[in-house]
Amino acid sequence: MQTEQVYQPGLEGVIASETAISFLDVDSEKIILRGYDLIELATNVQYLDVVYLLLNEKLPSKEEKKVLENQLKENYHLPEAVISILKVLPEDIHAMDALRTGISAMAGFDEELEDFSSEANRKKSIRLLAKVPVIVANSYRLKTKKSLIEPQKELSFSSNFLYMITGKKPSESEAQVFDQSLTLYSEHEMPNSTFTARVIASTLSDIYGALTGAVASLKGRLHGGANEAVMKMLLEAGSKDQIEPLIMKKLRNKERIMGFGHRVYMRKMDPRAMLMKQALRKLAEEKGQLDLYEMCEIGEAVMHREKGLYPNLDYYAAPVYYLLDIPIELYTPIFLAARTAGICAHVIEQHNNNRLFRPRISYLGPRNLHPDT
Amino acid sequence: MQTEQVYQPGLEGVIASETAISFLDVDSEKIILRGYDLIELATNVQYLDVVYLLLNEKLPSKEEKKVLENQLKENYHLPEAVISILKVLPEDIHAMDALRTGISAMAGFDEELEDFSSEANRKKSIRLLAKVPVIVANSYRLKTKKSLIEPQKELSFSSNFLYMITGKKPSESEAQVFDQSLTLYSEHEMPNSTFTARVIASTLSDIYGALTGAVASLKGRLHGGANEAVMKMLLEAGSKDQIEPLIMKKLRNKERIMGFGHRVYMRKMDPRAMLMKQALRKLAEEKGQLDLYEMCEIGEAVMHREKGLYPNLDYYAAPVYYLLDIPIELYTPIFLAARTAGICAHVIEQHNNNRLFRPRISYLGPRNLHPDT
Repeated sequence: MQTEQVYQPGLEGVIASETAISFLDVDSEKIILRGYDLIELATNVQYLDVVYLLLNEKLPSKEEKKVLENQLKENYHLPEAVISILKVLPEDIHAMDALRTGISAMAGFDEELEDFSSEANRKKSIRLLAKVPVIVANSYRLKTKKSLIEPQKELSFSSNFLYMITGKKPSESEAQVFDQSLTLYSEHEMPNSTFTARVIASTLSDIYGALTGAVASLKGRLHGGANEAVMKMLLEAGSKDQIEPLIMKKLRNKERIMGFGHRVYMRKMDPRAMLMKQALRKLAEEKGQLDLYEMCEIGEAVMHREKGLYPNLDYYAAPVYYLLDIPIELYTPIFLAARTAGICAHVIEQHNNNRLFRPRISYLGPRNLHPDT
Repeated sequence: MQTEQVYQPGLEGVIASETAISFLDVDSEKIILRGYDLIELATNVQYLDVVYLLLNEKLPSKEEKKVLENQLKENYHLPEAVISILKVLPEDIHAMDALRTGISAMAGFDEELEDFSSEANRKKSIRLLAKVPVIVANSYRLKTKKSLIEPQKELSFSSNFLYMITGKKPSESEAQVFDQSLTLYSEHEMPNSTFTARVIASTLSDIYGALTGAVASLKGRLHGGANEAVMKMLLEAGSKDQIEPLIMKKLRNKERIMGFGHRVYMRKMDPRAMLMKQALRKLAEEKGQLDLYEMCEIGEAVMHREKGLYPNLDYYAAPVYYLLDIPIELYTPIFLAARTAGICAHVIEQHNNNRLFRPRISYLGPRNLHPDT
């Protein structure tokens, strides 16, 4: 039986949408993506398989995956105007502000912008998935006074993404862990950024606008900005001996420690974090940087002992990206680039079965005031 | 007693926030803004009084209003880079896409961007309120190959806005009705665009990003885009004899008629529409265009007879803007410029008492699938 709605701050626990895309199954400790366990996907298939799954509701054959990869490569090119927009932005701009402006600007160059059919939305999703990494890499290069970098079509999609960021062709093992991180970030039910995109799309606004809003959302430090905050803390500690005193000092000062806990999983470790922790160990061993891995393990133990909190994906993705030589300010833009797959799938689903989001409020202000007349 | 949450598509009837800013009081047929009846405000005070009220929680003294107006005038200037960004956007771009890109780009030029105190957020709100009209007017002028127009500081804030759009100094009566329309659009509880802005702000993302998301939302034809659709229908009819056959044809074809009905007020006329209807009559008389007024009245009667629906603000604001010589594609951007006051007030309130928006979903997809390995 339904009773009166009770106000849940932050819509905690409120069902905002029906979806067939993904589900955080807290009881079975699984993240389900279109029926598959995300951890099983991240262990057995690649990011492009998951992109295809999200957009097409099934895993691709080898041939279908090849077609998708070619479509992405054919769409790497940015309009000249978008490059010139990135060039005039201030040098000290936040990377997410540049990315938001770049994605917003691209809308005007897509001839299918106002076609909201699944087919057109899927084509636009592929264009966005191709171009977002090119914006991410090149807006950073412009900021740091490097020349623009051209995508290398002979590299795989995710190897090329990492290459454009670092300027070096990645080793097989680097490419593999980066690809796995993209898979883990690809989709995660209804976080704030995905919710933002669906809310926007529900006015029958376009997929570029929806993704632009999602970038704005993901920028916040309570959301995508967390991975950057984690790395800054690890660098502040500097060595495994210093992480415990640093965390204890921050806790005494009532500072929020990022990379721990999650609105949905509170009593268990984020399954994605476990996989990234393994990847970090492997990468740290290969690069002779085991101190970083051990520092993370100590931080994990301290936070569990002190606050009962478990690490989330951001906590282990941050040091992985650090060992891949990725500039810290690109961690959140990379998260967005990976999540573009999931967000686009949600926009497609929203447009296919739409109901305008328009909630109500509980009014706490005064009443019955009158202006002097 | 609380029972299980029931899924309400589009969050219809769900309380998403507590707020002291505004409330659609359906029972008493009033729109309450910080305790005042919006219709009483729109009849007795001006847009800048309401801007001050929204941002400062009280109506201004004459002196305080003057200070606000001067602050707005001091902030008309756009960064050169933003002008150059507007210049490279494609000529056929939707005005809301240009506005979204312009607002997003401005973030990088605000030195207080990452300061979320009420004081800093209020200063940023004033900068946005000053600059959004300049972007709206000039991005349209660039598109239509007109030279850039300089704001005229000797005109009042809203007269200058109308002047920048039309290129002519408005008559007193034109300025008055335009100002009144801005007041009516200034704030309206929790429509999709305001909700978008609060959802984004709740990640502790900045006010520029929140407003950028709101522009994306307002673009959709189920939201801000409605006023443009209304005017296109009135022009398609062309005369008061043709409006009834046109609406009847559209209804037979199951086309949606924009400008009627509202998620919240279903059984009564939007009180804002009544005021704009009076303003339209006055303006139509002055301009010898009573046919347009009568056409709107017939349309109103037909929709009530056929569907039991009442006009909303967009239905009467559209012909008012038409008689003010405002290009149709600027109706939605003007709505956004006016609503910037309310949206900024909501972002300030969200940042002051924040809880991250993170709802859940109802999963309808498959389970227990496994990739071939």
